[in-house]
Amino acid sequence: MSGGMDERSGTTAVDGEEDDLLLQLRRLEISDNAKGFVELLSQLSTATAPLSDADFRARFADLAALGDDHLIVVAEDRQAGRIVATGSVFIERKFLHGGGKVGHIEDVVVDAAARRRRLGQRVVRYLSNHAKAAGCYKVILDCTPDLRSFYEKCGFTEKTIQMALYF
Amino acid sequence: MSGGMDERSGTTAVDGEEDDLLLQLRRLEISDNAKGFVELLSQLSTATAPLSDADFRARFADLAALGDDHLIVVAEDRQAGRIVATGSVFIERKFLHGGGKVGHIEDVVVDAAARRRRLGQRVVRYLSNHAKAAGCYKVILDCTPDLRSFYEKCGFTEKTIQMALYF
Repeated sequence: MSGGMDERSGTTAVDGEEDDLLLQLRRLEISDNAKGFVELLSQLSTATAPLSDADFRARFADLAALGDDHLIVVAEDRQAGRIVATGSVFIERKFLHGGGKVGHIEDVVVDAAARRRRLGQRVVRYLSNHAKAAGCYKVILDCTPDLRSFYEKCGFTEKTIQMALYF
Repeated sequence: MSGGMDERSGTTAVDGEEDDLLLQLRRLEISDNAKGFVELLSQLSTATAPLSDADFRARFADLAALGDDHLIVVAEDRQAGRIVATGSVFIERKFLHGGGKVGHIEDVVVDAAARRRRLGQRVVRYLSNHAKAAGCYKVILDCTPDLRSFYEKCGFTEKTIQMALYF
């Protein structure tokens, strides 16, 4: 993020919009399970089951062990104490491209009640910036065709197709 | 892999084709750099630069640290001592789907001189089986549309589009 420091919290605030001080983009924290993080994900997929606090903590620890190779960003509405947007990126290390790295963006979602604040673009920019800073030569993601124009606004270009095999 | 044990090497052999004893699907080993592994990848992308042995070893160690969450399979032509096919899968742990896992297949390539032996299908099956055994609910991959029918033969279905942002 290119935002300035928020003097109140000491963390980096989002920039350029009037609700800066009320919305903070930051890494997922273990306390975010109580702020509706998994419920927010359920807006992305009907198949999302609730997670027990123990399961949430276990998965959080799995991902924390990956360090900067896996990042989940959340936007917290600080007045409401709720997570209103999120997205993740994991960094794949390849033998291709002289040992290059690729960022994979996954699970971008904005609360239906928090649209029209460019939160989606800010989440994608945060994740893309992280991948770039980590040395990736590109970031990629899969989406339905109706999201093509949104990701084009974020600087992405349509490249290939995604195939899936369900077990 | 569903193949039986190869009594000569004690490793799992590929099954169902007459060249079983000469072609072995197995995990990438650090000695495979001398067997043309990176050269084979260069058939996949013109942007693939050679890797020094030190860089190969460093990347190998990065990936080995991920344990079963990252697997590179290679098919070695044991007569020639060359790697003739490869593919990788990494396992992403999500908060979605009740803490589900997704396998991401990447960098599948068969040596142009070793086509027509179903090596591609065998590589994809090996990777898919690994993801399934690891508890993934699906495996996904991105490919150009001309490979759609190949992946359909492997059981995959076209789902979405891939978008990319290059740095």
